[in-house]
Amino acid sequence: MQRFDGRAADELRPFKITKYFQKYPAGSVLMEIGNTKVICAATVEDRVPVFQRGTGVGWLRAEYSLLPSATATRTARESARGKQTGRTQEIQRLIGRSLRSVLDLEALGERTVILDCDVIQADGGTRTASVTGSFVALVLALDSVIPKDKTFPVKDFISAVSVGISNSGEPILDLCYEEDSSAIVDMNVVMTGNGEFIEVQGTGEGRPFKRDELNTLLALGEKGNNELISYIKDSLGSELDWRIGSVK
Amino acid sequence: MQRFDGRAADELRPFKITKYFQKYPAGSVLMEIGNTKVICAATVEDRVPVFQRGTGVGWLRAEYSLLPSATATRTARESARGKQTGRTQEIQRLIGRSLRSVLDLEALGERTVILDCDVIQADGGTRTASVTGSFVALVLALDSVIPKDKTFPVKDFISAVSVGISNSGEPILDLCYEEDSSAIVDMNVVMTGNGEFIEVQGTGEGRPFKRDELNTLLALGEKGNNELISYIKDSLGSELDWRIGSVK
Amino acid sequence: MQRFDGRAADELRPFKITKYFQKYPAGSVLMEIGNTKVICAATVEDRVPVFQRGTGVGWLRAEYSLLPSATATRTARESARGKQTGRTQEIQRLIGRSLRSVLDLEALGERTVILDCDVIQADGGTRTASVTGSFVALVLALDSVIPKDKTFPVKDFISAVSVGISNSGEPILDLCYEEDSSAIVDMNVVMTGNGEFIEVQGTGEGRPFKRDELNTLLALGEKGNNELISYIKDSLGSELDWRIGSVK
Amino acid sequence: MQRFDGRAADELRPFKITKYFQKYPAGSVLMEIGNTKVICAATVEDRVPVFQRGTGVGWLRAEYSLLPSATATRTARESARGKQTGRTQEIQRLIGRSLRSVLDLEALGERTVILDCDVIQADGGTRTASVTGSFVALVLALDSVIPKDKTFPVKDFISAVSVGISNSGEPILDLCYEEDSSAIVDMNVVMTGNGEFIEVQGTGEGRPFKRDELNTLLALGEKGNNELISYIKDSLGSELDWRIGSVK
Amino acid sequence: MQRFDGRAADELRPFKITKYFQKYPAGSVLMEIGNTKVICAATVEDRVPVFQRGTGVGWLRAEYSLLPSATATRTARESARGKQTGRTQEIQRLIGRSLRSVLDLEALGERTVILDCDVIQADGGTRTASVTGSFVALVLALDSVIPKDKTFPVKDFISAVSVGISNSGEPILDLCYEEDSSAIVDMNVVMTGNGEFIEVQGTGEGRPFKRDELNTLLALGEKGNNELISYIKDSLGSELDWRIGSVK
Amino acid sequence: MQRFDGRAADELRPFKITKYFQKYPAGSVLMEIGNTKVICAATVEDRVPVFQRGTGVGWLRAEYSLLPSATATRTARESARGKQTGRTQEIQRLIGRSLRSVLDLEALGERTVILDCDVIQADGGTRTASVTGSFVALVLALDSVIPKDKTFPVKDFISAVSVGISNSGEPILDLCYEEDSSAIVDMNVVMTGNGEFIEVQGTGEGRPFKRDELNTLLALGEKGNNELISYIKDSLGSELDWRIGSVK
Repeated sequence: MQRFDGRAADELRPFKITKYFQKYPAGSVLMEIGNTKVICAATVEDRVPVFQRGTGVGWLRAEYSLLPSATATRTARESARGKQTGRTQEIQRLIGRSLRSVLDLEALGERTVILDCDVIQADGGTRTASVTGSFVALVLALDSVIPKDKTFPVKDFISAVSVGISNSGEPILDLCYEEDSSAIVDMNVVMTGNGEFIEVQGTGEGRPFKRDELNTLLALGEKGNNELISYIKDSLGSELDWRIGSVK
Repeated sequence: MQRFDGRAADELRPFKITKYFQKYPAGSVLMEIGNTKVICAATVEDRVPVFQRGTGVGWLRAEYSLLPSATATRTARESARGKQTGRTQEIQRLIGRSLRSVLDLEALGERTVILDCDVIQADGGTRTASVTGSFVALVLALDSVIPKDKTFPVKDFISAVSVGISNSGEPILDLCYEEDSSAIVDMNVVMTGNGEFIEVQGTGEGRPFKRDELNTLLALGEKGNNELISYIKDSLGSELDWRIGSVK
Repeated sequence: MQRFDGRAADELRPFKITKYFQKYPAGSVLMEIGNTKVICAATVEDRVPVFQRGTGVGWLRAEYSLLPSATATRTARESARGKQTGRTQEIQRLIGRSLRSVLDLEALGERTVILDCDVIQADGGTRTASVTGSFVALVLALDSVIPKDKTFPVKDFISAVSVGISNSGEPILDLCYEEDSSAIVDMNVVMTGNGEFIEVQGTGEGRPFKRDELNTLLALGEKGNNELISYIKDSLGSELDWRIGSVK
Repeated sequence: MQRFDGRAADELRPFKITKYFQKYPAGSVLMEIGNTKVICAATVEDRVPVFQRGTGVGWLRAEYSLLPSATATRTARESARGKQTGRTQEIQRLIGRSLRSVLDLEALGERTVILDCDVIQADGGTRTASVTGSFVALVLALDSVIPKDKTFPVKDFISAVSVGISNSGEPILDLCYEEDSSAIVDMNVVMTGNGEFIEVQGTGEGRPFKRDELNTLLALGEKGNNELISYIKDSLGSELDWRIGSVK
Repeated sequence: MQRFDGRAADELRPFKITKYFQKYPAGSVLMEIGNTKVICAATVEDRVPVFQRGTGVGWLRAEYSLLPSATATRTARESARGKQTGRTQEIQRLIGRSLRSVLDLEALGERTVILDCDVIQADGGTRTASVTGSFVALVLALDSVIPKDKTFPVKDFISAVSVGISNSGEPILDLCYEEDSSAIVDMNVVMTGNGEFIEVQGTGEGRPFKRDELNTLLALGEKGNNELISYIKDSLGSELDWRIGSVK
Repeated sequence: MQRFDGRAADELRPFKITKYFQKYPAGSVLMEIGNTKVICAATVEDRVPVFQRGTGVGWLRAEYSLLPSATATRTARESARGKQTGRTQEIQRLIGRSLRSVLDLEALGERTVILDCDVIQADGGTRTASVTGSFVALVLALDSVIPKDKTFPVKDFISAVSVGISNSGEPILDLCYEEDSSAIVDMNVVMTGNGEFIEVQGTGEGRPFKRDELNTLLALGEKGNNELISYIKDSLGSELDWRIGSVK
């Protein structure tokens, strides 16, 4: 079966990560996958929330936003509405949780890393693209902040993809918007560099799903994440690859 | 290995669902599991959001709140802060999504069901207790609203449990607060009456998890949900059991 | 004349105070009077608002909320609306003011007591039930915090009842919802253990009221409060009764 | 005993009501009593809240605000804080309730009257000055809107004063700021033209108060309100005096 | 051509500044120009925003508000809406920026001056009246705070007027509401005591404007500001006039 | 004198407008000038605000936002703060006012155009870049919506530049961030295709400015706007150039 855009069921859309996309933040990338485009920027502040002061331990949080013009129908601006939607908050929490899982908060020291994920164009998979792009922005930012002779606070690679069961019942990798909005089952899979899971979130939108369907989806997620992490390693280059997970 | 409170690894805490707990709502229960206590109430309104008017189709949404006094350390009241936290919004979305997955919105007609989940005491697992209790409140409410000769809009049973990997590395079922706050992996599993998945949400809080650990956790989730659904069927009685999933 | 629910004009509804209703707060009760049910919990924090730091003096404030499912027609959740209604704020101020009037803020020291009044079911008189229940929760909480050899910061007993003039012109004690919503005059009376007034709030909703009607209502209020305070004294027991008002 | 500003215990401060103080509203006055100055304006809108449409019945509500510069220490602007304080809401509710008690909502028809009370200078008694001033603004506004051959919707006169027990234990009428902030008992009394009560709100701030103290305070309130209503009748003139309470 | 109210094209409406209008603020005036009336009050606080502490430098900001009853059609109260409109914020920024331009923040020291501009009646030109009135309130406030032997932090006089091109194409000075709402071009001109510009804001509302029209408008603005500053100098008197701009 | 970045005093930074930058909005561009980059997108909705329904007349409004990562120091996200800053509102109003001045709201019909200006990178002049970029996005959007045989609602070209007096006293065109933050006088000039003014906003930040300085700044603004409009005409091409200002 061919998909909407001609891809095979287990095929990622073309993707690209442009490093140092912005001038000011410590780390920033443009993450593109298909028509989805997200600017991910990492800012490092030399302070932590009040409840953590004096602990020697850092923190990381993420913020996510859609440009109003990023979606097929214009999305109302959250700053004009005066609050963030539940969807936004759910996504911010996912990104933050995922990145913290590979961050050594003690090696980070009393610093706060803020990951800003701003979606310029949304064609499905913006939350997983945000996780993947943020990871690269985080590594770039910390590389500029953490001296070479110190333990690098990033312990492992991570990336994320969406998988799902299409409305024709087929398990597919990396759903675009049309596929996502009609999918029967929708799942996000965040994984580490050596193939373990950080986060698995699957929802039966149209009907419940069986154990073996779940297994098929996880296998698709593994395949997609392998490709992304391989790309990220190349993109970061051997020196940064070597810093990740090294302890001093 | 024995757990904190003497349970076996695959053992639920004692639980009880008290039906018709409140006087006014169409359906309401007190859901208790261990020291966790949640009032779940279902209100049925004869109108739908603006964007659905005239479609003949209904809607369901959930609201979740902790009493400030429900937690070990007092939780600030969200109405006083002026907004709901990201955690609250994430949980509300999970409850709503889970219940909508077994709700026939066309058979419901142009009505809105609101599920209010108010946690009186929180000792772990409040979101899964809310899903389970809300399901029963929903059935009671719709039973009082939908005539006997019409298709009953609830298509299947659902229940939810938490599972996780304890800080000593053991997979366990139904985490209490102490277990939850130190767990390495944390997962919520929402399932239907015939053992299929509605929602699987697993997070590696302390470290990533492997495929076979995920399998073990899912098996624990199945065991727990089987027990809950069996209890719910008894509790609702054969007449209501018979209405669920029947089509006229 | 017999009332809606068969009571005499000067008769309270059946009432009960269940102490230590919740596991976590320093003091908590379930206050029931007729179908009205309020959870009152007292939390003691070892800090005071900024403007009071270093003064050696404490503070007490109250928060009040209706569960959405507590009322005949569902009440919109204030955290979802983003703010508290004027009614909520008015009630919170009444509860706080009433309890502070018998609290020795110097004996309390630099602590803040927060009284959370969460109405589980509302059938009239929720604000007076909140004052009465909060008083007991406050005493339980301070008994657990203030050493036996220190001045106990509660100087006197208080309780509160509603009184009013029914739509048939009769002065009545402890109005249920049906009576309250049609009353011509509505009054709340907060009193101390020796029969003095803390707060008197009377409003002519349907028509103005005369001086002798006011006197009749105050007499009903005295009768109701006498019964409540007598019950509270029994409920707290002689040891706690003895602490209240004692100075070291 | 002489008071802070030389008045007798039962003496009002000098007061004055300037009618038609503003150019645009249907009715407006400047209410001055001592150094307290409140602009009260009544706007009449030809529509009612959604839930009242088609009922033929009108509504009245009040809004109250302090200019930041009205108080001894600058008061933060509520629009900058993003919400109204509990004190503001409590006062708005008191003003609205008091005026509605003498308003015939059916004779008003499907109109909304909004009373804006903006305190230019606050030296005690701003809420009672707001009630009194609003009453006059209301009468002026309705006189310009309701034809002479129709029932005038204002059924009776009202006015309001504060009374209290000073820190030296003496019952006094019309407290200025210094007296109010140190008073042991504080009470607001809203009365009609023929000496009946609309609202009585008394609070023991420093200690509880006895029945006979309450009686003394009510007598002071009656004296003060008699003087205010006599002034209002003169100020409105015989034609408007005659319209109030007349039925066609 | 004669204007709406009989004025010549280059004629200000009658204006008056009443000093010390309120009892409490360090400086306050009632600024009247035509039917426009604004209370301007200056409060001086002995602290600065967090980011300025320890710098020895002060700050000034302005707040602006319309009484709901100030306008031809009642304006909704911003504190009830929960936020300030864009118009309000734009005006506050203009007032603050204008006054800061003649304020020596180092001579002020670590103090914050807050200018409250509350419009009692709005008949056009409220923002320029606010600038002019605030200037006088500022001088009065600082005169009471800054010792005679210290550098006075106000470096120069300022005043502001509106100018515009009427719907009949004529350049006019000091637009009233009717003129303002139909003007083709609208401009605000803030100037110093020796005829230089602090702020020029011109907008082509109905059509673009040419360079020579701009010149004509600026000339009108100069004429109006000359008259206002001459009045202010008289009003402040020679002693204060002498303090402004003097350096110790 | 040479500037910070080597430009002449009357020289614009390199600029570029990339049309059709996003996939979904009716019109969108990336506006770049120096390091300042703004995405401007125009959405056309087939409805108008409530107060305009049935009038046959349309509306246009603008929204402006900085990505948190766009600035040298990270800017807090307005949706997380819960409100837009005064600066944001001021800029939104400027953009909307400028574009409405060349929009024929009757020819637009009952439609609303929303201009979203999202700043990706901020190096001075973001508000003028937003006006210029929005104009092009507006033309592209309306070209896709308005049939060729109807009056095109855009009546004229507009563009905007910043000008100012540098801290060394020299009048300069198109200030970058370093120049802007230290400028003595700051001015924004919005002009039409035939050299008339839409908006002139000049502020003496460091000192007042004289009439002849204002003239010099306006001349610089004319030069810069001429170059921008010439570029825009080329960029839009002759067909669109021809539509602007044409009446059917």
